[in-house]
Amino acid sequence: MLMALLNDDRLFPVDGRVRDLARDIYAGIKDLPIISPHGHTDPRWFALNENFPDPARLFVTPDHYVFRMYCSQGVDLATLGVPRADGGETEQDPRKIWSVFAEHFYLLRGTPSNMWLTHAFQEVFGLDIPFGPQTATEYYDHIDACLKSDDFRPRALFERFNIEAISTTEMALDDLKYHRMIADGDWNGTVISAYRPDDVVDPDFAGFTDNVLKLGELTREDTASWTGYLNAHRARRAYFKQVGRVTSSDHGHPSARTENLDPAQASELFQTVLSGKGTADERDAFRGQMLTEMAKMSIDDGLTMQIHAGAHRNHSGPVAQMFGRDKGFDIPSQTEFVNNLKPLLQAVGMEKDLRVILFMLDETTQSRELAPLAGVYPALRLGPPWWFFDSYEGMKRFRENVTETAGFYNTVGFNDDTRAFCSIPARHDVARRVDAGYLAELVATGRLGASEAHEVAHDLTYRLVKEAYKL
Amino acid sequence: MLMALLNDDRLFPVDGRVRDLARDIYAGIKDLPIISPHGHTDPRWFALNENFPDPARLFVTPDHYVFRMYCSQGVDLATLGVPRADGGETEQDPRKIWSVFAEHFYLLRGTPSNMWLTHAFQEVFGLDIPFGPQTATEYYDHIDACLKSDDFRPRALFERFNIEAISTTEMALDDLKYHRMIADGDWNGTVISAYRPDDVVDPDFAGFTDNVLKLGELTREDTASWTGYLNAHRARRAYFKQVGRVTSSDHGHPSARTENLDPAQASELFQTVLSGKGTADERDAFRGQMLTEMAKMSIDDGLTMQIHAGAHRNHSGPVAQMFGRDKGFDIPSQTEFVNNLKPLLQAVGMEKDLRVILFMLDETTQSRELAPLAGVYPALRLGPPWWFFDSYEGMKRFRENVTETAGFYNTVGFNDDTRAFCSIPARHDVARRVDAGYLAELVATGRLGASEAHEVAHDLTYRLVKEAYKL
Amino acid sequence: MLMALLNDDRLFPVDGRVRDLARDIYAGIKDLPIISPHGHTDPRWFALNENFPDPARLFVTPDHYVFRMYCSQGVDLATLGVPRADGGETEQDPRKIWSVFAEHFYLLRGTPSNMWLTHAFQEVFGLDIPFGPQTATEYYDHIDACLKSDDFRPRALFERFNIEAISTTEMALDDLKYHRMIADGDWNGTVISAYRPDDVVDPDFAGFTDNVLKLGELTREDTASWTGYLNAHRARRAYFKQVGRVTSSDHGHPSARTENLDPAQASELFQTVLSGKGTADERDAFRGQMLTEMAKMSIDDGLTMQIHAGAHRNHSGPVAQMFGRDKGFDIPSQTEFVNNLKPLLQAVGMEKDLRVILFMLDETTQSRELAPLAGVYPALRLGPPWWFFDSYEGMKRFRENVTETAGFYNTVGFNDDTRAFCSIPARHDVARRVDAGYLAELVATGRLGASEAHEVAHDLTYRLVKEAYKL
Repeated sequence: MLMALLNDDRLFPVDGRVRDLARDIYAGIKDLPIISPHGHTDPRWFALNENFPDPARLFVTPDHYVFRMYCSQGVDLATLGVPRADGGETEQDPRKIWSVFAEHFYLLRGTPSNMWLTHAFQEVFGLDIPFGPQTATEYYDHIDACLKSDDFRPRALFERFNIEAISTTEMALDDLKYHRMIADGDWNGTVISAYRPDDVVDPDFAGFTDNVLKLGELTREDTASWTGYLNAHRARRAYFKQVGRVTSSDHGHPSARTENLDPAQASELFQTVLSGKGTADERDAFRGQMLTEMAKMSIDDGLTMQIHAGAHRNHSGPVAQMFGRDKGFDIPSQTEFVNNLKPLLQAVGMEKDLRVILFMLDETTQSRELAPLAGVYPALRLGPPWWFFDSYEGMKRFRENVTETAGFYNTVGFNDDTRAFCSIPARHDVARRVDAGYLAELVATGRLGASEAHEVAHDLTYRLVKEAYKL
Repeated sequence: MLMALLNDDRLFPVDGRVRDLARDIYAGIKDLPIISPHGHTDPRWFALNENFPDPARLFVTPDHYVFRMYCSQGVDLATLGVPRADGGETEQDPRKIWSVFAEHFYLLRGTPSNMWLTHAFQEVFGLDIPFGPQTATEYYDHIDACLKSDDFRPRALFERFNIEAISTTEMALDDLKYHRMIADGDWNGTVISAYRPDDVVDPDFAGFTDNVLKLGELTREDTASWTGYLNAHRARRAYFKQVGRVTSSDHGHPSARTENLDPAQASELFQTVLSGKGTADERDAFRGQMLTEMAKMSIDDGLTMQIHAGAHRNHSGPVAQMFGRDKGFDIPSQTEFVNNLKPLLQAVGMEKDLRVILFMLDETTQSRELAPLAGVYPALRLGPPWWFFDSYEGMKRFRENVTETAGFYNTVGFNDDTRAFCSIPARHDVARRVDAGYLAELVATGRLGASEAHEVAHDLTYRLVKEAYKL
Repeated sequence: MLMALLNDDRLFPVDGRVRDLARDIYAGIKDLPIISPHGHTDPRWFALNENFPDPARLFVTPDHYVFRMYCSQGVDLATLGVPRADGGETEQDPRKIWSVFAEHFYLLRGTPSNMWLTHAFQEVFGLDIPFGPQTATEYYDHIDACLKSDDFRPRALFERFNIEAISTTEMALDDLKYHRMIADGDWNGTVISAYRPDDVVDPDFAGFTDNVLKLGELTREDTASWTGYLNAHRARRAYFKQVGRVTSSDHGHPSARTENLDPAQASELFQTVLSGKGTADERDAFRGQMLTEMAKMSIDDGLTMQIHAGAHRNHSGPVAQMFGRDKGFDIPSQTEFVNNLKPLLQAVGMEKDLRVILFMLDETTQSRELAPLAGVYPALRLGPPWWFFDSYEGMKRFRENVTETAGFYNTVGFNDDTRAFCSIPARHDVARRVDAGYLAELVATGRLGASEAHEVAHDLTYRLVKEAYKL
């Protein structure tokens, strides 16, 4: 097979001398195992190891990166088979979905999705002709046949992708059934969970008050009291550690606001939001208080804490009504960290053994706020560029914006953050290439020694991830 | 003649291999006709086809890009012949103005104005020696002689510039006299208008209340009532479509705020601002309401809607008093789109046939807010980098910031946005070169196929402009 | 000696043709004298000309760029010998400090500190082996021996560094003792001061009210009255001009807020803040009023005015308690200039002989706000990228962000802004290299003529600094 879809030197600097340096650095890291410490794959896949259903349901229907772009150019989400939340009709025929996917595939030109998909087509499925309307059927048939074979079941792909460890993400009330199955089974792939308590921490989460009650039932704590509620979190974190083998918690908040109220104030605020009577500001303050509480629990139980701040979720009301959450209408917004994180940092920022990883969707905070903060507070680390910035330009800007102030060692390697299983090798490969190219530029411009570059490349790809996430 | 002022490879990537790719892509688009769907040329030029008066009044006096820079270094605007609003004296002798222009021309080093002027000197006037104090007289004499000839009248230049269509911009109360003359005459150049209703939509616009009354007289609607006022807009839009052949409206607001009030609230707000008693917030809310109203009218009459948000106009009070509006003291300011546009987008964002084009002066919104919004809402498109960002670096950053998230097809090609007629070919040439260079980089780094790059280049230069503006 | 630590072509563009252009431009400016118009060296060094104590106290203990990074990775500041404000213990043995410094030196990879230190090791101390744990003792012994010799006393280094003029910074109450000693002595190095009145202008400064009283005693003015307070400033500025030979004032404010109140309002505000009863907003307004007052005084006495806005100082309360101010916990924050500077600019922005230099820590303001403001107001100039942006990427982004809109001539060359004496040649060298590389890119892409580039390089390195600071 010719393997003609991908350029071997893709994403490397164009200058011959620097490209050679980049190739050399990349050669040293390209085959390192994948550590995926923050993602959204479905643990059911690895627990049951069933075949994936069909090409459309693998590549199109669940991938909001893809269908949001089609939507932006007038393709109806129902045409792409996106499930309806309102009970309305949506396309069920995978071949029809695939045909629409192929017809408008050119819309993805210049986007990371294009590169990830092409990588999967070539590297996972061995295809070597360009994808488009002319080749749609050939692609469908080939991928569909692959998916029916044992070699393309989840565990086989996991091993072929050279994944050393992967983390999924579960809400606090999740029973971790599939993680238990994996742990109890005889497969030795490392699939762990992360503790994501938005369902019991965010008063704006649907069913918040009921969820807090359920948390009490699960943990046998009185979650109607502030003390009991905190104890329930401690118990649930312990359960997640034991059953889900979690090493991290994850917190997706609209802002980076933190609070550090005294227990009486915190208790009062808890009662207010639990009663459903809290104002928007009180609900926000409560989320902020809980970040500091979680950081304090992390000091005790060692979980690495991840903060994903700054998304305006489900921006279109009509689309949310029709199709539900997470349909590509989550829009980043301006984020402030210096004042917002101050209460948490006053409380725990100087803790040497605590790890708080900050993710950002507002790139302007990288050089202005986050690199200076991470460049001085022992507890802080910077997460990799996330979401829309999980891309060539996004990663390049991240390194250029933060390295001079935060160095390399206050960063934590790459996260793929994805539901799209077949894109995992592609995403990690992009990150490795961009880092190799960036380091090659540093060497070529006299900012780093060549042997240092190799060591840093290894650190960024492997060591820093494992250390930050205690894997 | 040697044509030595301009480098044939200007603005292309410096690496030899990538430069060759850029040259090749550029070769395919450099001679495409100019579509100028948003500008500020004077329709009178094309209606009357009179000779331009002299070099100073062509290149210096009306160009706020030029005279603001001179002002910043202590050159008095009156010395450059900028007209006075307060009746004071200003230089009248074009040769004296030209001499000051030449003496300080070095101040424009590194700016787009330098490149546009040099392009016009060489390509429009055939000059091939550098401009400066030593050559000022030779330049003046040569350009002045050209301007007296028929070959340099507006229509001749229009044709020589290979302009397929150009749009001017007129306020709602404008009678479109010159557009009528052009339409009624025997010249077949396409010069159309755009509907810019700031004079009757913005309560802070001088004479707003009177203007609304005049709008009523012109349209025979009762603009003292909310319903009549909206009907008057519909009628005026129809008039602009018929007489000015407009395909778009244009809205220059200090912020991107939109509102979608119910009719009773909107009517009350209208009465408040019409009475002159509205607070700053109410005036702002009214502008925001009118954006949504205009978007709804666009669904009916098909006009493409342009939103130019984020300028702090006439920043210096003393200068505005002495010289009037638009004297280079308009300063961009921080702009927010995610929350501000939400009311409009909830109402009409999912309309597939509506086109709302967003322009930005705050680059930080490109990757954070605008590309994600345009990358999902069918009604939205992103305008080209505008004003200070109509430049090499500005365009490059725009493509790097938005393509990965919004792709190419949610952008609308180039706008020259200029009063400076002779700069039009230069500006379009810069845009074509930057796009060619950007696409060449994508090809060289394995992010786009070479044949795709040619197709995209054509789309960006020609097809997307025509489609977005229905030209 | 091999001089192997530094790459001769460091920081130049990698493309061979552009690198040659950069080398050529750099060759024309590399040996120009250093003008250091804004810094924080200790005038005592030059007055007394004593030997520097030891390597650790030269390179580690006073350099917050270095120790903040070590702190971020869990190295205790006390281990590095950082003095305690709370009387607690801190490491006193310079060899132990040096050993920790060497052990974790890899943390500075990719940062400007790494480049500055390496430059000093090679160029100031003649070392040619990489610094690290293995070579720590050799380094210490060699540097320590140097420091004991006369060739490494402050005045000898000043001359060897080819410093034509350097400015230190003193608070308004400083007696300028060392500047008097320098002026009265027989050494003819030019070491001047800058008037930094934060201690008597900022109501949040520790001891503000007492300081204002002391200012009255020093100047024999009644600083309990607004008029007397302003007169005292005038007198103190005159004193600084006479004794400290100052040519500039410097103002470090949390925001860029300015006010231009009428005298009665200003007097009332002064009484409020002097009484200690002012609200946070009133204290901020007072700082803003004083910027405008200082600008007006500058019109009279000719001092160039510098505004350093946008730092959140001493972010960690616990660290400030233990170690005091300025320990690397100053974090930049979002800054707004367009509205904040308007009162000052309305009052004095059009003054052709006034120089107000704006520094920024929020890069997003460069292209959006500052270049447009400096590109039109005669009084404004843009300071060089400051602090965390005194770096390769920071400088490159600055030129790319501002040149197209503000040109070169509204910038003022380089400031080193440093306490670290041995880093001064390194920092100026970095700036010269980055400018040479940037200009070479402009030439290579047809945006500037080669001979113009040489002239601009000289202007940026030497002429514009001297003019802006009247040196």
